Amino acid sequence: MNDPDNPLARLAAIGLSVPAAPGPVAAYEPWQRIGNLVTTSFQLPWIEGKLAYVGRLGEALGVEEGYMAAHTCALNGIAQLMAAADGNLDRVRILRIEGHVGCVEGFAEIPQVLNGGSHLINAIFGDRGRHARTALGHLVMPLNAPVMLGFWAEIVD
Amino acid sequence: MNDPDNPLARLAAIGLSVPAAPGPVAAYEPWQRIGNLVTTSFQLPWIEGKLAYVGRLGEALGVEEGYMAAHTCALNGIAQLMAAADGNLDRVRILRIEGHVGCVEGFAEIPQVLNGGSHLINAIFGDRGRHARTALGHLVMPLNAPVMLGFWAEIVD
Amino acid sequence: MNDPDNPLARLAAIGLSVPAAPGPVAAYEPWQRIGNLVTTSFQLPWIEGKLAYVGRLGEALGVEEGYMAAHTCALNGIAQLMAAADGNLDRVRILRIEGHVGCVEGFAEIPQVLNGGSHLINAIFGDRGRHARTALGHLVMPLNAPVMLGFWAEIVD
Repeated sequence: MNDPDNPLARLAAIGLSVPAAPGPVAAYEPWQRIGNLVTTSFQLPWIEGKLAYVGRLGEALGVEEGYMAAHTCALNGIAQLMAAADGNLDRVRILRIEGHVGCVEGFAEIPQVLNGGSHLINAIFGDRGRHARTALGHLVMPLNAPVMLGFWAEIVD
Repeated sequence: MNDPDNPLARLAAIGLSVPAAPGPVAAYEPWQRIGNLVTTSFQLPWIEGKLAYVGRLGEALGVEEGYMAAHTCALNGIAQLMAAADGNLDRVRILRIEGHVGCVEGFAEIPQVLNGGSHLINAIFGDRGRHARTALGHLVMPLNAPVMLGFWAEIVD
Repeated sequence: MNDPDNPLARLAAIGLSVPAAPGPVAAYEPWQRIGNLVTTSFQLPWIEGKLAYVGRLGEALGVEEGYMAAHTCALNGIAQLMAAADGNLDRVRILRIEGHVGCVEGFAEIPQVLNGGSHLINAIFGDRGRHARTALGHLVMPLNAPVMLGFWAEIVD
């Protein structure tokens, strides 16, 4: 914790802390682990139990709001991965982020929206945050969420 | 097989058995394995070689039918995982279910539809069925299927 | 390299070579690896830095063009996997291809389009190319790409 380069210190340095890990909205678990490999359910932009962003990009929300929604999803993902790593974020290495954006037809800025999640992960985890990413847009999203992010990570011994 | 808590016994207790594992509809395999990790292709609601449900939620099908379509996809997924586990479902632990629902814009019950798969998996596998889940809606689906489910699972030694 | 059955020889036999591995279009990496498991970011139909195919199936493009777009995505995926395997394609075994097709509502040939990727992978990798596959259609795609393919592969020791 005295290491200024650890993920919690980096979060604190930009005024953030790890939120409570959001629970699922249906009959499933927030994450599962096989050996050192962790996969999460999709993370939505929950803040204290409420969806902080609702609606589609290119319609209800602009790119800046979408970027912040992705940032919020990523913060919730960090909470899940911390739980999967027995509370120790120093052991987490991000492998893959699956990015999904709710948007209208013709919306052209899916990568820019998802960067809101990738930038946070890169800033907080440093080399261990370097991730592959998948990106898709959808006209319909569960709970009308503007962004959802799924994570695959390694728990480093 | 005399253990009332094993997956086959639980299936039998609710009047179900494992169907023949459906083949793929194109140039691919139904599942692959690396070490103890298994991934499946998307499972459709096939019953004896025919799609038992066709069309989109919120249009051709209601939520109850979608729920049963997801249940059928999950039963086919169980068949694939049993094949991947050399016929022994007792060795299967579910890690992640990827849920995809064909629906119209504004359809609000994607999680409820996918619960048709999650409830079956939870009932049949018990603790080993506790899975992460991803959920998406789509205006267009291969073969106009209302639901597709992908599985990631562990083969437990 | 003198083995006529290795992937590079098979590529050469059909007049192809491995392109330079395309870089990402945003704040992420083209692939990541945990142990012997590799996951890639979605591959687009880039040829020498330009999207060789743009627009949706059933509208801007026909099935043959979509098939070739999937073929091109797969060639770029091979480039990423070769990089992940320290330049040695002989060590690559394909596990899963995630196929995404940009299309209009009602488009019925998603599997046929994705076969453009699967056929190449099967031809080049032989038994090690036998892959699970997921298939989805989307009304909106990043960069208006007609096809994107994600790969999961094993690096064989």
